[in-house]
Amino acid sequence: MRNFKIILQYEGTRYQGWQKQESTENTLQGRLEALLGKMSGKKVEVQGSGRTDAGVHALGQVANFKLETHQTPAEIMDYMNRYLPEDVAVIAIEEVPERFHSRLHAKGKTYLYRVMNSPVPHVFERRYSWEVAESLDVEAMRRAAACLCGTHDFSAFTSHKKSKKSNVRTIYEINIIEKDDEILLQFYGNGFLYHMVRILVGTLLEVGMGKRNPEEMEKILNSHKRESAGMLVPAKGLILVEVHY
Amino acid sequence: MRNFKIILQYEGTRYQGWQKQESTENTLQGRLEALLGKMSGKKVEVQGSGRTDAGVHALGQVANFKLETHQTPAEIMDYMNRYLPEDVAVIAIEEVPERFHSRLHAKGKTYLYRVMNSPVPHVFERRYSWEVAESLDVEAMRRAAACLCGTHDFSAFTSHKKSKKSNVRTIYEINIIEKDDEILLQFYGNGFLYHMVRILVGTLLEVGMGKRNPEEMEKILNSHKRESAGMLVPAKGLILVEVHY
Repeated sequence: MRNFKIILQYEGTRYQGWQKQESTENTLQGRLEALLGKMSGKKVEVQGSGRTDAGVHALGQVANFKLETHQTPAEIMDYMNRYLPEDVAVIAIEEVPERFHSRLHAKGKTYLYRVMNSPVPHVFERRYSWEVAESLDVEAMRRAAACLCGTHDFSAFTSHKKSKKSNVRTIYEINIIEKDDEILLQFYGNGFLYHMVRILVGTLLEVGMGKRNPEEMEKILNSHKRESAGMLVPAKGLILVEVHY
Repeated sequence: MRNFKIILQYEGTRYQGWQKQESTENTLQGRLEALLGKMSGKKVEVQGSGRTDAGVHALGQVANFKLETHQTPAEIMDYMNRYLPEDVAVIAIEEVPERFHSRLHAKGKTYLYRVMNSPVPHVFERRYSWEVAESLDVEAMRRAAACLCGTHDFSAFTSHKKSKKSNVRTIYEINIIEKDDEILLQFYGNGFLYHMVRILVGTLLEVGMGKRNPEEMEKILNSHKRESAGMLVPAKGLILVEVHY
């Protein structure tokens, strides 16, 4: 069995997220497994670096799958791009050692959340960003973001019910970049909990709107309670940019 | 009667072009006139700087319309953006002298054609660009473009049947910019004939593919025959960037 690692781009708009589900067909994992199953005539399991939720986009999702085949990686990629719908593309492929596992070996991830911050609609960005009309205090957002960096229990920033799994994660860096009327929030960490980036962004935006103080972040972290943190922002502004190995 | 000038953005994908038609409803002019008619309770005529064809996008289309109203320009813009579909937006509005006419007073236009030049699909650009997998000789395209600048009879570069109207236009500048795997073709001229930019791009791409010599351009211009020029490229890569006054 050969092991292939692929880098994927997708527009998440019409998908019910990455992970295949019994009841629904339109997941990215489901689509890819069906396609590779058809290509190889066998059941193929596609392992993603992590789930992306319904509506979340990817510029650099990583997945791997094992195949018995004589095809070259380039031939497999061409086949996939010929038959994948136009909102999904394989942009790179390589053969990797059999032990490589896209989720278990991932060391970190970079996510981007795009906020269009002006009262005018953004026709060409509307599918890939969220529009916030209120003016934002970006410096306050940066101070709040600094408090969130480091190793913390992020239980307050996830929609998951309490579980026995650890909610401790490390955020290495949060960059908040202003570019014309766009505010880009970039998160680099060793891993992110369910809804974590979107709740972090919601909380930072509430700081930017003056509804919260930057100094509150520590209190929210220590509360371990979802209710202490801010709103969950829409999926469409979130992009998985890169998976680090 | 007050006269209002607006700047519009739209994604042309689902429209049958700018100009209203009797048989079809989904034109930009038709949509805007219906909306302003509803707002004012009177028939309103919206005059565009020029037609854009079905599928062509705009970052800076200009239009004007006359209204008897006590509303401020900002109120009119807000009303329009509240009721326009999400693929159309008014990004600026100002009150102008009654004699201002968006088409007759336009001194020039800038168009952009986006070519994605790599064998990999471009998920996020697919609606706003055309994918060309063949490698392109951009320097040859630039030499050909230089021959097209200036004042010429562009009859060879339009799909219109011969008419009594002049087909003489001036192209002030053609810039061909390489940016990652994207090739941007920028046209600045005093006006463009029906399909002119898309046939110019098709002809320049044929030069880039080595199917034509850059030196052929003069012969094509002098032929005044559509058959001498290159292919008509798809509308979805074309964007009206700016109208100059």
